[in-house]
Amino acid sequence: MAGPLQLIYTEDVADPRLDEFRDLTTADRRPDRPGGRGLVIAEGTVVVRRLADSPYPVRALLGVQRRIDELEPDLADLDVPAYVTSADVMADVVGFHLNRGVLATAGRAPQPSVADLVRGARVIAVLEGVGDHENLGALFRNAAALGIDGVLLGPGCSDPLYRRSVRVSMGHVLRVPFAVASDPGEWRAALEVVRAAGFRLAALTPQPGSVPLWEAAGDRKVALMLGSEGHGLSGDALGAADVAVSVPMADGVDSLNVATTGAVAFYELTVRREGAACDVRS
Amino acid sequence: MAGPLQLIYTEDVADPRLDEFRDLTTADRRPDRPGGRGLVIAEGTVVVRRLADSPYPVRALLGVQRRIDELEPDLADLDVPAYVTSADVMADVVGFHLNRGVLATAGRAPQPSVADLVRGARVIAVLEGVGDHENLGALFRNAAALGIDGVLLGPGCSDPLYRRSVRVSMGHVLRVPFAVASDPGEWRAALEVVRAAGFRLAALTPQPGSVPLWEAAGDRKVALMLGSEGHGLSGDALGAADVAVSVPMADGVDSLNVATTGAVAFYELTVRREGAACDVRS
Repeated sequence: MAGPLQLIYTEDVADPRLDEFRDLTTADRRPDRPGGRGLVIAEGTVVVRRLADSPYPVRALLGVQRRIDELEPDLADLDVPAYVTSADVMADVVGFHLNRGVLATAGRAPQPSVADLVRGARVIAVLEGVGDHENLGALFRNAAALGIDGVLLGPGCSDPLYRRSVRVSMGHVLRVPFAVASDPGEWRAALEVVRAAGFRLAALTPQPGSVPLWEAAGDRKVALMLGSEGHGLSGDALGAADVAVSVPMADGVDSLNVATTGAVAFYELTVRREGAACDVRS
Repeated sequence: MAGPLQLIYTEDVADPRLDEFRDLTTADRRPDRPGGRGLVIAEGTVVVRRLADSPYPVRALLGVQRRIDELEPDLADLDVPAYVTSADVMADVVGFHLNRGVLATAGRAPQPSVADLVRGARVIAVLEGVGDHENLGALFRNAAALGIDGVLLGPGCSDPLYRRSVRVSMGHVLRVPFAVASDPGEWRAALEVVRAAGFRLAALTPQPGSVPLWEAAGDRKVALMLGSEGHGLSGDALGAADVAVSVPMADGVDSLNVATTGAVAFYELTVRREGAACDVRS
């Protein structure tokens, strides 16, 4: 039976109950935990609320009184300790001044299989080589805002549950389902599962012969493949795609940031495609 | 008569000729210079090349041999000193380690009037309250990539020529023309100049009654108004607009970052509008 938050007051920097909030700058690498990966960390009231609504099992909160007070009515079903302390003690525990004033930790949750990810989905994003945590977080934020149903992470992608990624995503990485296929064999198999589920694999690339995104989608389910900012999609990924698509750009300009390119493409494949029927001129 | 770069070798951290590269973390505030504003600083070969192609008068370069060598063939018309030194001396002068290995400084250039900015333009961005230098830089990068003809900066916007903004823009803030109308009187007058030049003032806002962006543009010239991330456009700006437009979002999600919203809207108003004729369904 779930209960309310258990408020616990402490001003002891060395309090061992605060250990899982300690030194957050290195909290993503935890050799003592499964897979060597850290707990999920949510920072700030907005992201803590999203964590509480997510499938990840919340373990504890740490915050200043004011922020815990703000959260308490929304977290009435959460039967976990909420450590209340001063901003100074918080800063000493986490290792830096945290101006959002509240944190929560959660354990990892099982990821869906690729087959589960695509079930009922209409548009998914498929990422390869997106190693930068901020770009990854921004992609999840953009995916949530524009109604992408899921994300498949291929080789070279970072862990989207790293602290920085969770923060930049505004917590949406905790809400948008994702599956991981890191090794080459898993990756090839995952793309075939997506295709077999009726998705058109559309590889976003500036290469010659790519067609403008709006010509490629039609009424099909689409898996939009996005590569790393430096090198784009690998030859293998391009080879596995059904169609190469592009966002036409002004001449001579570097491509957009990968998360921004993603946003434009997500827009085209979701709200734009649903909102207006288009006759292609050219 | 323009000549080639003048290569000058120095390993003296205290060399007074390097003073304008000194302590870059505070270089944006220069009480000794007109308007209290710093020189324009370009970092890295890509941005230095864009600076050299811009209207801003280059004053000097500072770099390691390898980066100066890379740039020299492209800067053959530039008759300015290029100080060549070691990475360590550079780090001591600028105040931090600079992994791009080359910098250039330039003076400010006169900004176009609003009338000049809109002459011949088809789509411009109009920004209000965009104070964050990274967002501002990203908006210029997105504007360049998606073919926006100019940017009008209203009240509450930062100086887009701050070092961080130039860097995040990848130097495109040096290429996309912009005009500034900071005080309320200038701002109102500037919006009237834009309207009188035949532009439809389209205010991007999530407020009820806004129409999807693609329904608002038609064949008109469009001035897309974007507000601050926190508060959006002011009541005055909304009142001055001809139409309120939105990028439809998934339910319950915070709006996109302002630069990302800009990218989606720029895409709609430029490449998307030019590439496909659309029949609106709803």
